[in-house]
Amino acid sequence: MKRFDTAFADGAFHGLIDDGLRGIGDDCAVIPQHSGTDTLISTDMLVEGTHFILEDINPYDLGWKSAAVNISDIAAMGGRPESTFLSLAIPSGLDTVWLDGFIDGYRDISRKYGVRLLGGDTTASPDRICINVTVSGSIGHGKSKLRSSALPGDLICVTGTLGDSAAGLGVILDGLPREGASRRLVEKHYHPIPRVEEGIYLSNLEGVHAMMDISDGVASDLPHILEESSVSAEIDTGALPISDDVLEFCSSYGSNKKTAAVELALSGGEDYELLFTVGEDCERRIEIPHTVIGRIREGGGHCIKWKGFRGSLCGFRHFRKTVK
Amino acid sequence: MKRFDTAFADGAFHGLIDDGLRGIGDDCAVIPQHSGTDTLISTDMLVEGTHFILEDINPYDLGWKSAAVNISDIAAMGGRPESTFLSLAIPSGLDTVWLDGFIDGYRDISRKYGVRLLGGDTTASPDRICINVTVSGSIGHGKSKLRSSALPGDLICVTGTLGDSAAGLGVILDGLPREGASRRLVEKHYHPIPRVEEGIYLSNLEGVHAMMDISDGVASDLPHILEESSVSAEIDTGALPISDDVLEFCSSYGSNKKTAAVELALSGGEDYELLFTVGEDCERRIEIPHTVIGRIREGGGHCIKWKGFRGSLCGFRHFRKTVK
Repeated sequence: MKRFDTAFADGAFHGLIDDGLRGIGDDCAVIPQHSGTDTLISTDMLVEGTHFILEDINPYDLGWKSAAVNISDIAAMGGRPESTFLSLAIPSGLDTVWLDGFIDGYRDISRKYGVRLLGGDTTASPDRICINVTVSGSIGHGKSKLRSSALPGDLICVTGTLGDSAAGLGVILDGLPREGASRRLVEKHYHPIPRVEEGIYLSNLEGVHAMMDISDGVASDLPHILEESSVSAEIDTGALPISDDVLEFCSSYGSNKKTAAVELALSGGEDYELLFTVGEDCERRIEIPHTVIGRIREGGGHCIKWKGFRGSLCGFRHFRKTVK
Repeated sequence: MKRFDTAFADGAFHGLIDDGLRGIGDDCAVIPQHSGTDTLISTDMLVEGTHFILEDINPYDLGWKSAAVNISDIAAMGGRPESTFLSLAIPSGLDTVWLDGFIDGYRDISRKYGVRLLGGDTTASPDRICINVTVSGSIGHGKSKLRSSALPGDLICVTGTLGDSAAGLGVILDGLPREGASRRLVEKHYHPIPRVEEGIYLSNLEGVHAMMDISDGVASDLPHILEESSVSAEIDTGALPISDDVLEFCSSYGSNKKTAAVELALSGGEDYELLFTVGEDCERRIEIPHTVIGRIREGGGHCIKWKGFRGSLCGFRHFRKTVK
């Protein structure tokens, strides 16, 4: 939203606007309700051919994922997701079995997190499916974990493991057989689990400072925290949480297995784990599974020092297929 | 949203869910905030080739219209629009001049109504532009004007004139010269003015019962009120407010000018005027321009008796172009 951000009213819609109201620049907008709670709102669009290949994702998974990536944005602030609004542009040739499958997936994840579908828009599309989900949620006033709150000395932590979704995408794109580890990785790619309860737990710890979800990979997402907080970071690549499945996937490539896994963990997107910074004292008291992967350093430049790694890193870009 | 409505939790997301919370079935969802206000949320998707032809609408107008149709949904409940969230899928070939024009239009209508862009999503599209806007607004708790509140005996009223936008679309589709009336009608089609102040005014009158905006034409939209309120209606087609511009446009067609104008007024969509029902006593005290076009009748069946008209009526369908 950078372009819109600068184009609209000299940046007045970016960051803190007035008391507690926050616009573009975080995982969600924060709208205070003067009743002790803040409303969180986020929106995400998924376009056929950019974010998914129709022939390769089953409709149930797509329905699930469409809601999951939005619910994850609420989790990223530490809030509780409550309602979604679903817009769906559908080509006329799409059969009702597909649509029913999509609805099943969307409904199942909605029920899992107690989220209600309160509205939306269905419309015709000349050819491609386009999906937009807006999610709203709530959190105690001023309790949202923002990207701008990281402090020098903070430990940098993540929930879960990294690179699984990107490895799953690799299995899909390379047409590898889907069994064992490969099957589980594809499942992770298509069926992400937003960290809602973990986000709420972390939002209640004052020592947790900045937080966001990992949608584009640590190498792409951590810089948002560094820029918003005017700090730098050091990442110990040896400490990255990498699953055995990802290591097994990487061993199918001839090159250095460990290097390939680290590249996936840092550059791979769509893990939807939480990335947060926390004071050292508080970190010791965190009772949910997490991994310390580095530390926030003083000073601008928003640099990341990658300890123990010489591979190449690039931010995750959504899969794009050239379409006939 | 009918399909989703029935698929999700046995219709639990339709209409009144719990105290004051309303889901699918009105122009907006209504979410009580326990602070004396309700949050209103609505979302709309515009797809290139379904809702607009890229070569025929200038980007400024498209930016304006994308926000306008959403702001109109808040007006339809009687609320004040406050924030929008814009998702935009853009083909790589689209130039920045186009994008700047779009932003200008979106920003100008946002400023006009004091609406802030608080977030969104920009993404690549393989070919077509897809736009989704979510709007949020507020209204005093329980003060939303719903589709389900029409009472037998109510007068049926509209703001403004009807059919202008559809006539403008006719000018565009038939490639007529755009001067005088034709130019103004095209302007109405591309540059709708949501009735925000009128909606807020009407929401403060207890005698105003049901309300919605006219996006698909009276013949398509009034049945929503009739179904939700379990009533019928009688429309005096001779009373429909039709502009001189529409009459002039219709005179360019060989057939009966008056019949053609009434067809446009009833079947033509995208006027974004307000359609409301009001007790007779209250109607006399309404201080904003409006026209009484009929009356709500007791009984189900959701029938509309069209007095003084023998033409054919069909609900407005968005323009669709067969694309190469």
